[in-house]
Amino acid sequence: MELTAQQLAAMIGGEVVGNPDVTVGTFAKIEEGHPGALSFLANPKYTHFIYDTESSVVLVRRDFEPERPVKATLIRVEDPYATIAHILDMVTKMTAVEKRGIEQPSYIAEGVEVPADAYVGAFAYIGAGVRLGAGVKIYPQVFVGDGCVIGDGTVLNPGVKVYAGCEIGARCIIHSGVVVGSDGFGFAPVDGHYEKIPQTGNVVIEDDVEIGANTTVDRAMMGSTRICSGAKLDNLIQIAHNCSVGSNTVMAAQAGVAGSTKIGSGCMVGGQVGFVGHIEIGDGTLIGAQSGVSQSTKPGARIMGAPAVEMGEYARSLVYVKRLPSMAAQLKALEKELKTK
Amino acid sequence: MELTAQQLAAMIGGEVVGNPDVTVGTFAKIEEGHPGALSFLANPKYTHFIYDTESSVVLVRRDFEPERPVKATLIRVEDPYATIAHILDMVTKMTAVEKRGIEQPSYIAEGVEVPADAYVGAFAYIGAGVRLGAGVKIYPQVFVGDGCVIGDGTVLNPGVKVYAGCEIGARCIIHSGVVVGSDGFGFAPVDGHYEKIPQTGNVVIEDDVEIGANTTVDRAMMGSTRICSGAKLDNLIQIAHNCSVGSNTVMAAQAGVAGSTKIGSGCMVGGQVGFVGHIEIGDGTLIGAQSGVSQSTKPGARIMGAPAVEMGEYARSLVYVKRLPSMAAQLKALEKELKTK
Amino acid sequence: MELTAQQLAAMIGGEVVGNPDVTVGTFAKIEEGHPGALSFLANPKYTHFIYDTESSVVLVRRDFEPERPVKATLIRVEDPYATIAHILDMVTKMTAVEKRGIEQPSYIAEGVEVPADAYVGAFAYIGAGVRLGAGVKIYPQVFVGDGCVIGDGTVLNPGVKVYAGCEIGARCIIHSGVVVGSDGFGFAPVDGHYEKIPQTGNVVIEDDVEIGANTTVDRAMMGSTRICSGAKLDNLIQIAHNCSVGSNTVMAAQAGVAGSTKIGSGCMVGGQVGFVGHIEIGDGTLIGAQSGVSQSTKPGARIMGAPAVEMGEYARSLVYVKRLPSMAAQLKALEKELKTK
Repeated sequence: MELTAQQLAAMIGGEVVGNPDVTVGTFAKIEEGHPGALSFLANPKYTHFIYDTESSVVLVRRDFEPERPVKATLIRVEDPYATIAHILDMVTKMTAVEKRGIEQPSYIAEGVEVPADAYVGAFAYIGAGVRLGAGVKIYPQVFVGDGCVIGDGTVLNPGVKVYAGCEIGARCIIHSGVVVGSDGFGFAPVDGHYEKIPQTGNVVIEDDVEIGANTTVDRAMMGSTRICSGAKLDNLIQIAHNCSVGSNTVMAAQAGVAGSTKIGSGCMVGGQVGFVGHIEIGDGTLIGAQSGVSQSTKPGARIMGAPAVEMGEYARSLVYVKRLPSMAAQLKALEKELKTK
Repeated sequence: MELTAQQLAAMIGGEVVGNPDVTVGTFAKIEEGHPGALSFLANPKYTHFIYDTESSVVLVRRDFEPERPVKATLIRVEDPYATIAHILDMVTKMTAVEKRGIEQPSYIAEGVEVPADAYVGAFAYIGAGVRLGAGVKIYPQVFVGDGCVIGDGTVLNPGVKVYAGCEIGARCIIHSGVVVGSDGFGFAPVDGHYEKIPQTGNVVIEDDVEIGANTTVDRAMMGSTRICSGAKLDNLIQIAHNCSVGSNTVMAAQAGVAGSTKIGSGCMVGGQVGFVGHIEIGDGTLIGAQSGVSQSTKPGARIMGAPAVEMGEYARSLVYVKRLPSMAAQLKALEKELKTK
Repeated sequence: MELTAQQLAAMIGGEVVGNPDVTVGTFAKIEEGHPGALSFLANPKYTHFIYDTESSVVLVRRDFEPERPVKATLIRVEDPYATIAHILDMVTKMTAVEKRGIEQPSYIAEGVEVPADAYVGAFAYIGAGVRLGAGVKIYPQVFVGDGCVIGDGTVLNPGVKVYAGCEIGARCIIHSGVVVGSDGFGFAPVDGHYEKIPQTGNVVIEDDVEIGANTTVDRAMMGSTRICSGAKLDNLIQIAHNCSVGSNTVMAAQAGVAGSTKIGSGCMVGGQVGFVGHIEIGDGTLIGAQSGVSQSTKPGARIMGAPAVEMGEYARSLVYVKRLPSMAAQLKALEKELKTK
């Protein structure tokens, strides 16, 4: 399917700058552009690419003014990133081959009802008493343990493992290799060895959550480990037992949260961040990559470093550490000068 | 099943403080208590919850004296955490639906004997020459490569992968997504590219080991990578080729150990800690979260930081870095003063 | 099979020092040596083991001169590590039981051709339109999504998941639990929640790449996430959408690369290193373990720390931080002295 810049602009409420008749039929990053492709410019760091991109049409911000001639046709929109997302979403939905039905061989315990519009891939395992919502997509090699509940429209990608008794809400996307409901890490030291503390709780994942590949979410010792609605977790994250991650909180890859820590809603957590156990992170907290969070935070906190401190303080201490050699030299000079007085 | 506080106290050798006739039939964290629930108080940080918890009964330490009236009935015991673990364990064993038998379709190589009390789930793969101990539980979608040995009572959760030739002892619990015996990361640089060093060894996991979800343990180049008896590994940990992890050592999530490093027994390793290769960590070493361990340690060492140093030294250097701005100001003042003399 | 030291030396072009008639039939690390075993000494740190090793033959460097008598027969070669790798490789190839054919049950979409010398294990899933190269080995429980291309001689170990539309080159080795082509982590904030940005690109893995267990490589938002020929990735690594990893670059376990970052060729990346998004790492860059890389680097850079700086600068700042207590004392003394003048 091809659209002219003019047609596209009409669909998305944008303003054309340049040739309105040029057509696009595919997508490309602005730095990898080619004729016939639609690109976008959202990150100012990439602005210099706009002058040489081979893409035919580029979405830009309303207030974007090129400093030099641009070969591509521009379409000005409020938010280029959101707009391209919207277009991609439309195209994806139009072109997706919807999986449906039950592939063989699969294992579906007696009494489990598979809704008519659902998909259960080959080698998937659906345990006893599982409840599947309308339109769920259970890809091949997924394991859903006894008594789990999977909400409407949720997608479990190939190889996801959900231990018995866990609940996943509606419209969630769980990527391959994710483990939901494995035992929390709880042991009591007894006479020089460790006795296992049974982990009798479960995991509850609310609606509209996305969880990245190979992330692990342990079941609670008692009660529930909880991922609240709209939270987005990247790949290879560890969520320990009895934690909760608040609504619309986003966590980047390889972050790890120790037991019973509660992360508020609307937080942004950088990659490889670690949290100690038993703390509370206030709503809207922003945490820089690789930080080590050892204390609870107030709502809206912005922290960084290991141990994590307020971002301004972190930046200052970096500056002072850089100045250390000159401070040492200064000190030596002073000492010398003092001796001569 | 419901028990009165009095009955429970009799079972566990505790002393009742408050109404002995109140009944419990479920468990809850003290901060999430509700009527009819049994809770425990082990971490002093949670003491304030005892005054308002809705739980009917709370296990506390022998020497616990409330500062204000407590609504719940208390049961005083030596070690509340170990006691709750014990109770949970009894209940889990009483209520667990024991999996048994061979589900179809599964793949069991010719000649492999499956003990009568074992479980082999659907889509599990048992290679040629595998030896399975009594009562093993092989969950769905597990892979056990040719020639592996799995000890009595060991549980391989859904999707565990064990490469050929590896050995797992008795009473181990291996969680979903764990990979045992993948090739160690060994390459020799030859003319600007890398040639693979074949990894001809295996992995040996001794008895009573628990390994968390998505952790990886690479096979040895020669000989064995070894996880010794009673060691407990959390989720998403990396154990490289030819490492060993000592008896009853516990490692928190996302720690990583580079090749040939030997960790002693009874160590405690924090989350996201990294170890360089070819070092030896003494028995009983304690390592703070996110540390970077670049040198061997003596038995009983307590270290932290990156590069890791003795914990006292780490704490001091944090204090001094915090004092840097005032030191710089002091230095400037001194310089000025000196000029005026 | 047993060989004398003399025969072995003739095969590998080495020079025998000691008894040429002693025989070896197995391999062992020098520190775990036993009679009949062949060992090697490459890392100087292990030199002291040569005087007591029980191994019968040890490969050493041409210029190695023992300081005391050695019981084992030595064979002097140019590069002991490369030589042992070569020997192991020959032995592995001679003794390997080559897997071939199609095990049942497996799922192979209609129209997919499986080459005669390929292996498809039980419970493997091969989607529609997949193209399989000669001699591919698809182990049990692997998922290969619709439209993927797998090159000649490539091995997908048990449980690997490759999402639809991805391409893997020739002679690659992908270890268990690896996820290729999961959605990149892209969301647009809209009215306090996040809308998913469809990830419409794919992953391209070129020839001779090895990827370690449970590593994740996300598909591009547009275009391709790319792992270039000869790159070697260890376990539990995260490669985000639209990244590229250059030819013959090696990355140690648990490293993570944020979106759109391009890593050059011939780089060496330590364990647990993190990269921010949208930067470029020059060819031949060397990055110390646990570094936090926040800026682009020039070719041949050697960096370390978080934020990462040139290695010399990193080492100096460590030294100065160590000197802080004495600097503080010096400062205090100066102040006192100044007062008395």
